[in-house]
Amino acid sequence: MCGVIGMVGKSPVNQALYDGLTVLQHRGQDAAGIMTYDNGRLHLRKDNGLVRDVFSAEDMLQLRGNVGIGHCRYPTAGCSSSAESQPFYVNSPYGISIAHNGNLTNASDIKRDLFLADLRHINTSSDSEVLLNAFAHKLGELGKLRVSETDIFDAVANIHERCRGGYAAIAMINGYGILGFRDPNGIRPLCYGSRDTDAGTEYMIASESVALDVLGFTLIRDVAPGEAVLIDLQGNLYTRQCAAAPQLAPCIFEYVYLARPDSMLDDVSVYKSRLRMGRTLAGKIRREWAHHDIDVVIPIPDTSRTAALDLANDLNILYREGFIKNRYIGRTFIMPGQAVRKKSVRQKLNPIELEFRGKNVLLLDDSIVRGTTSEQIIQMAREAGANKVFFASAAPPVRYPNVYGIDMPAAQELIAHNRSVEEIRAVIGADDMIYQDLDDLVEAVRGKNTGLREFDCSCFDGRYVTGDITAEYLLALETERADAMRVGAPLQSNRLAGMNS
Amino acid sequence: MCGVIGMVGKSPVNQALYDGLTVLQHRGQDAAGIMTYDNGRLHLRKDNGLVRDVFSAEDMLQLRGNVGIGHCRYPTAGCSSSAESQPFYVNSPYGISIAHNGNLTNASDIKRDLFLADLRHINTSSDSEVLLNAFAHKLGELGKLRVSETDIFDAVANIHERCRGGYAAIAMINGYGILGFRDPNGIRPLCYGSRDTDAGTEYMIASESVALDVLGFTLIRDVAPGEAVLIDLQGNLYTRQCAAAPQLAPCIFEYVYLARPDSMLDDVSVYKSRLRMGRTLAGKIRREWAHHDIDVVIPIPDTSRTAALDLANDLNILYREGFIKNRYIGRTFIMPGQAVRKKSVRQKLNPIELEFRGKNVLLLDDSIVRGTTSEQIIQMAREAGANKVFFASAAPPVRYPNVYGIDMPAAQELIAHNRSVEEIRAVIGADDMIYQDLDDLVEAVRGKNTGLREFDCSCFDGRYVTGDITAEYLLALETERADAMRVGAPLQSNRLAGMNS
Amino acid sequence: MCGVIGMVGKSPVNQALYDGLTVLQHRGQDAAGIMTYDNGRLHLRKDNGLVRDVFSAEDMLQLRGNVGIGHCRYPTAGCSSSAESQPFYVNSPYGISIAHNGNLTNASDIKRDLFLADLRHINTSSDSEVLLNAFAHKLGELGKLRVSETDIFDAVANIHERCRGGYAAIAMINGYGILGFRDPNGIRPLCYGSRDTDAGTEYMIASESVALDVLGFTLIRDVAPGEAVLIDLQGNLYTRQCAAAPQLAPCIFEYVYLARPDSMLDDVSVYKSRLRMGRTLAGKIRREWAHHDIDVVIPIPDTSRTAALDLANDLNILYREGFIKNRYIGRTFIMPGQAVRKKSVRQKLNPIELEFRGKNVLLLDDSIVRGTTSEQIIQMAREAGANKVFFASAAPPVRYPNVYGIDMPAAQELIAHNRSVEEIRAVIGADDMIYQDLDDLVEAVRGKNTGLREFDCSCFDGRYVTGDITAEYLLALETERADAMRVGAPLQSNRLAGMNS
Amino acid sequence: MCGVIGMVGKSPVNQALYDGLTVLQHRGQDAAGIMTYDNGRLHLRKDNGLVRDVFSAEDMLQLRGNVGIGHCRYPTAGCSSSAESQPFYVNSPYGISIAHNGNLTNASDIKRDLFLADLRHINTSSDSEVLLNAFAHKLGELGKLRVSETDIFDAVANIHERCRGGYAAIAMINGYGILGFRDPNGIRPLCYGSRDTDAGTEYMIASESVALDVLGFTLIRDVAPGEAVLIDLQGNLYTRQCAAAPQLAPCIFEYVYLARPDSMLDDVSVYKSRLRMGRTLAGKIRREWAHHDIDVVIPIPDTSRTAALDLANDLNILYREGFIKNRYIGRTFIMPGQAVRKKSVRQKLNPIELEFRGKNVLLLDDSIVRGTTSEQIIQMAREAGANKVFFASAAPPVRYPNVYGIDMPAAQELIAHNRSVEEIRAVIGADDMIYQDLDDLVEAVRGKNTGLREFDCSCFDGRYVTGDITAEYLLALETERADAMRVGAPLQSNRLAGMNS
Repeated sequence: MCGVIGMVGKSPVNQALYDGLTVLQHRGQDAAGIMTYDNGRLHLRKDNGLVRDVFSAEDMLQLRGNVGIGHCRYPTAGCSSSAESQPFYVNSPYGISIAHNGNLTNASDIKRDLFLADLRHINTSSDSEVLLNAFAHKLGELGKLRVSETDIFDAVANIHERCRGGYAAIAMINGYGILGFRDPNGIRPLCYGSRDTDAGTEYMIASESVALDVLGFTLIRDVAPGEAVLIDLQGNLYTRQCAAAPQLAPCIFEYVYLARPDSMLDDVSVYKSRLRMGRTLAGKIRREWAHHDIDVVIPIPDTSRTAALDLANDLNILYREGFIKNRYIGRTFIMPGQAVRKKSVRQKLNPIELEFRGKNVLLLDDSIVRGTTSEQIIQMAREAGANKVFFASAAPPVRYPNVYGIDMPAAQELIAHNRSVEEIRAVIGADDMIYQDLDDLVEAVRGKNTGLREFDCSCFDGRYVTGDITAEYLLALETERADAMRVGAPLQSNRLAGMNS
Repeated sequence: MCGVIGMVGKSPVNQALYDGLTVLQHRGQDAAGIMTYDNGRLHLRKDNGLVRDVFSAEDMLQLRGNVGIGHCRYPTAGCSSSAESQPFYVNSPYGISIAHNGNLTNASDIKRDLFLADLRHINTSSDSEVLLNAFAHKLGELGKLRVSETDIFDAVANIHERCRGGYAAIAMINGYGILGFRDPNGIRPLCYGSRDTDAGTEYMIASESVALDVLGFTLIRDVAPGEAVLIDLQGNLYTRQCAAAPQLAPCIFEYVYLARPDSMLDDVSVYKSRLRMGRTLAGKIRREWAHHDIDVVIPIPDTSRTAALDLANDLNILYREGFIKNRYIGRTFIMPGQAVRKKSVRQKLNPIELEFRGKNVLLLDDSIVRGTTSEQIIQMAREAGANKVFFASAAPPVRYPNVYGIDMPAAQELIAHNRSVEEIRAVIGADDMIYQDLDDLVEAVRGKNTGLREFDCSCFDGRYVTGDITAEYLLALETERADAMRVGAPLQSNRLAGMNS
Repeated sequence: MCGVIGMVGKSPVNQALYDGLTVLQHRGQDAAGIMTYDNGRLHLRKDNGLVRDVFSAEDMLQLRGNVGIGHCRYPTAGCSSSAESQPFYVNSPYGISIAHNGNLTNASDIKRDLFLADLRHINTSSDSEVLLNAFAHKLGELGKLRVSETDIFDAVANIHERCRGGYAAIAMINGYGILGFRDPNGIRPLCYGSRDTDAGTEYMIASESVALDVLGFTLIRDVAPGEAVLIDLQGNLYTRQCAAAPQLAPCIFEYVYLARPDSMLDDVSVYKSRLRMGRTLAGKIRREWAHHDIDVVIPIPDTSRTAALDLANDLNILYREGFIKNRYIGRTFIMPGQAVRKKSVRQKLNPIELEFRGKNVLLLDDSIVRGTTSEQIIQMAREAGANKVFFASAAPPVRYPNVYGIDMPAAQELIAHNRSVEEIRAVIGADDMIYQDLDDLVEAVRGKNTGLREFDCSCFDGRYVTGDITAEYLLALETERADAMRVGAPLQSNRLAGMNS
Repeated sequence: MCGVIGMVGKSPVNQALYDGLTVLQHRGQDAAGIMTYDNGRLHLRKDNGLVRDVFSAEDMLQLRGNVGIGHCRYPTAGCSSSAESQPFYVNSPYGISIAHNGNLTNASDIKRDLFLADLRHINTSSDSEVLLNAFAHKLGELGKLRVSETDIFDAVANIHERCRGGYAAIAMINGYGILGFRDPNGIRPLCYGSRDTDAGTEYMIASESVALDVLGFTLIRDVAPGEAVLIDLQGNLYTRQCAAAPQLAPCIFEYVYLARPDSMLDDVSVYKSRLRMGRTLAGKIRREWAHHDIDVVIPIPDTSRTAALDLANDLNILYREGFIKNRYIGRTFIMPGQAVRKKSVRQKLNPIELEFRGKNVLLLDDSIVRGTTSEQIIQMAREAGANKVFFASAAPPVRYPNVYGIDMPAAQELIAHNRSVEEIRAVIGADDMIYQDLDDLVEAVRGKNTGLREFDCSCFDGRYVTGDITAEYLLALETERADAMRVGAPLQSNRLAGMNS
């Protein structure tokens, strides 16, 4: 996952982009970058690390100008499998940079074609660099000294024809302004808003509405699937639908886990959708476990608290925050001659015994990916004295890889891959377990927004909305991720931590 | 506030002390330090910053040995008003170091006496350095090549006679082992526990039991007021009551705000005490606001969530997490030629509008110190569409300075200082407001632990359990803190942030 | 000034390029960078600072591959007036990077043309980025998937037609190899050599032969003016004359001051040329100061030692190292409330009194630029007790700006600009002073290499070998440098320090 | 070796101490530290690294006050064999710190006694910490609230009675001022001087007079052997002879290699002594190689240049700087899978071929320690085409370890240990070789200063002026250094580099 942000302001944007990236930091803690435009010159600072560690006062001084874009990144195949951070930049034509969230499923084809057509070298394995060059190539083909709105929108239309996958991107075109666009299925989120100042109206485009809120911008609306939003240096805003047959099918996992609860995505409150997930799951529990003896509902912090509260309310069972999360995580050092002690889940999560002792507890997590953490948590609950430990997931079983930009392990590592619920229960050691049904999840997310017909639920049902995901593609992906796993074990364990943090 | 930790292990303790400090990091994020003992040599690393930033892999390599102590610090007069971090060290006698949480109220007298008696120079304004030298002086007076348990306990007894205030300290005596002791009123917390390994039993002393839990130690018990706990290099444990008339009167603010909920302090679960605070406050609301029209109870995260939940349960009103906390806070940079934009509370806390729009909301905070944040939060709730905004505090009005090691502003800056509740309400702009009664708070903390008769409630009632706090002392303190305020405005605003984070 | 280096090896080149840059570091201490090629991917590390500070072990790990180029830079208009370090990179076509030493005098025209023709954006004020894009543009125009030697040589020919000024550059073309080329006048130096290994022959191109020597390469020869040298990934070497009417006219200042004495430049030993400068100056002294009463010849370290030795030998006067250079220079800190103490020349140079007391001393410097240092040194000699202080310069008066890549101040700041020798003498406070004649300097540098007919002596005689330097150009340069001076006073004083170090 | 400095000024001393340490940096590049006194508080900054890397602007801000001391250190048994940097500090009595150059030969006895008498723990293996505690112990015994000059001088007298070895130290006594003292043989150098300012006279004490010169102080005189110099906070200066039977016997190696040529040590100009070393060696060459066929004298830079010049003058042979020293040395990185390439001497020193080709060269080094570098240099001279290579040393054969603070390898590693000159010649591969005679060296250093009767020449003749060095002591030293060698090979090679740089 990644977070993207862009702004055309009436005064320097460095601090606003920095603040916006901290608000979007939950979408990616691995790397961060900002590029600004000032009087024909571009200024860039990017590096691995948290926003607060990447940018020094000296860096901020260099990031001059009233226009700029920013990016924060999770280390993922869907975002960037290499160590490279964003924005990416090419100097031809015009000087164009891009911040991208998502994943192109036909990136290697495009990469090859770009070299054949335009001799453009893609130096990383990041599909974001491919996207940038595809866009730059199209604009460059026009050979105009100065691009028009139409030219830019046409180039986006060309991207939609050429690229497959999920993408939400913000580009900055030197001498023109910034551009946000979203794939024809609107898989990854993107929205924009405005803020009035004495010097005129300022615009911001961002992955999530919460960035706008916090910075005092008013959300105008989501960028529609296939649509592009353009703000020139003077602050004029243009929009156009650039896709032939756009159909909104946003990634449902954004609501389950990725997005901040205080965001609105495609006219749905993430927070409200999670409350509803709690209620629909409560319905299923009533149906399937009619004679349950649950004493207390305990969420696995932080994401599942919202759903757990209304699940408890609905079942009329006590809701308790039985796990305390440690907010200050340190490193595990490798000392010569000492065995590396495995970092226990307990250093991230600590049970309050009195909420467990002698009770039948229902633990709720937003979703279960590898299952390793679930297993340890259940064990912890038992050690804290729980009588019975039930485990619930606010999402259905995760059975298929994600190809649209979410960092998920290879299918082989998904606990639900080729396992029945009963088999999963046995592995994680719960007394009983229950998953949300996919229909219920869809219903919970959709809420009253009946215009929202489709979702990308591929990691639950294996149906990929772009319609081009073949068995061969998935097999290649599997191999690649398994390889990465072997080489980069420590990295992988970080990802696991991330998924549960 | 500070966190202290000490350990006598059977294998290297660097990682365990490091991990323990991350668990205690909520007690102080300003500086951190570890000192270890290895074969007659002491190794030290300390600096300003979070635990995760202070210790590099190279530092950890230097922190050799199976015995050591650690410290994390909040920038406070009660802990250390200077930039100096702990542990502190003197080489005479033996080589002794100390990590200290609390504040000595007669530090300047002792400092003068130590120089007169022993020519010992105290180089910082930290009372921890005074405590260390008082202890070292007493041990040194004996002139023994090798100290016994009795010698050490006698030196602690001397500390109790000589020092006034609140203190919980862990000392490391070169060639002997580590020592934990607590003032005769037990104002600041300290506990100890053990862990069995193949190589024998390991002991840990720490500010809070959660550090023991997370590291796999079993809590033995709290150190009693006036008591000392001694563990020698061989791992033998000795305890002795070293005070003439010890009487437990722990700081009640630990339960209100400072301690982690998953800690046990003096046989009371912090978590449970907070649940009870919610219920007693609910009782008062029923009594005083019999015909209230509250629609929803919303906690100010994170601390007040526990109390708010049972307050809502007890009142049978909906509980909702209406504020989302931003976990990734960045800096505000000072750019030449740009006005510094005030960091709004919104960058730390963002409202979920639907929980406010058209509703009468009761906001609950654990306590109200300066009131500035409360005012901004109420304003935020109104902007989010709240109909009426009521404000509740799980603690009584904070009207007096703390002299036992909690970082509190000067009395003049306390919103409740010389103000009635109605006046406070007017300042923060609530429709109505309510404070916990002190008796209820005491009841809520004490719970069923009837042995716990007294508390230090001085910041609420102005009664200082050590009986030596004069008007002159408080006046001097006031002047000093006001001075610090003038000089170090940015530092002070950090403290405010800390109090509410 | 800058240093450039490139290598096609049979094993990883990172350490060799790093070592080579330390050998070339005298050409630029402001920034350093290395880019390597490994299996289709390019790896880059560059930053401000000395070579030893820019590259960490982690950086070196990333700089994989058997092929690469490197750069070290002086902060100069002729190299890069901005903070940007080299190599520079464009991804279209192929992925090309460049390390450049020199200055294009028509850079702004080319920059404009490149945008008009190819929409290429030049983001810095560095003419090196212009050179890179001009080269890339030409190669890209061919539209070939794979370039041939002929294509590359043709592109260099195009550079020679299009670019004016002095330049010696090393480019790396992804998938092809590395390329070194030198302007048609050969103003800036470039040479190449080879080293045999078990795995085959390795090639290196570098600014100065000393880099080859130190790394165990054998100098093959200088790159001829207008010539290009190409080494493909397989290690095949190709050369071609790419200029229409090449005529060697190397910068004479390289011999006077810039180059290391142990380098051979255009078949002339820098060391030998300096010995000869001493002898020709001795001749002039004999002629003009026939009855001189000089007791001792004292060089201003380090550069002028070589010339001073043979000057003294030839005059049969004692040679003494009367000034000791401090090798460890620190910073001058700006402390609040303290006046900044001017760093005296004495902190860089300290006189040995006994060599001055009561003597008539002849001080020799390689050249005199601003004269400020000369003045202070003469003062120091007097304070050390010198009877008379004569001052000699191994080069003629520096009266005109350099436009080919040497960092020189604006003409207004040159002490010899619009001043007679007598006037200069009065300003610096010498008892008498003498400059080398330009004819003698040329003779001294040329030595027996009669093939070396022309030199660029423009800073001495105002004749610019490229024939395109107009009064307008110089005026614009003057204004620009004077502006830089006003803004960046501290930077300028660093440059002065650099000129004398 | 180490450099020490101390100052009582009339305005802040941080920059002056910093600058002074850069001037003394040739005495130790391994670590640096400064401690200042300001209004009863002491401020300290010390770390490993060069002066320019250890002190940041923020550090300098903290180093407040008009009084302070500084230290730079070489990694040596005689200075500190551990990683610890100086000044060292104890808080009892008064707060005393020390910066020390030298080595105590009975440090372990004193360490034991100090613990027995005073329970003082010495935490490092540095004899400087021992010296500090011995001094502090003696002062503390008096038990006075305020020490007098007499008390301090008495404590120095006690040091002289108790400590054996060579030491020159500067102590800072909180509330009093600074104190410089030198062992009764004056083995290590120390001098002092003054500077007049509008606010009154400032005093500085330093290892070498050059530090005074460069900072504008006038040398008053050397501290006499056994003498102490005391400057109180008001700037009053007191001196006293504190030793019973002082007898000056300075370390002759200071003149040979350690000191800067522009220093005066014990009324002898280091520079002049080196000129004389050249002449006395010339005399021996004339005597022993009456029919020599030397064409040119070439110094190994930098130290031997002075001697080589007058050696050449005296023999009437050409003097040439045939080796160019690379001033920018980088690191050798250890890359996985790559063999570590040995850093050749050539990366530090590069020959100018024309000075060697076909000639009979006499290479002169100041001294020969391990001989490894000499061997490589001779090889380099041959490769550069030398016909015959003669090798001369301005000092006699180094055959015995140094126990007074110079970093020398164990005797087993000294090339001259148990080898005749002919055997040494064979090992290093010279055509012939010659060493200065010890009598000549003594004569050269003494010059006209007939008051200078004795020197410590122990590394040449094995006679240790303190009279207490037994075979057992040397054997223990040998073992310890050999051990250090085994463990710390990289460190050792740094030392070698240092000896020849």
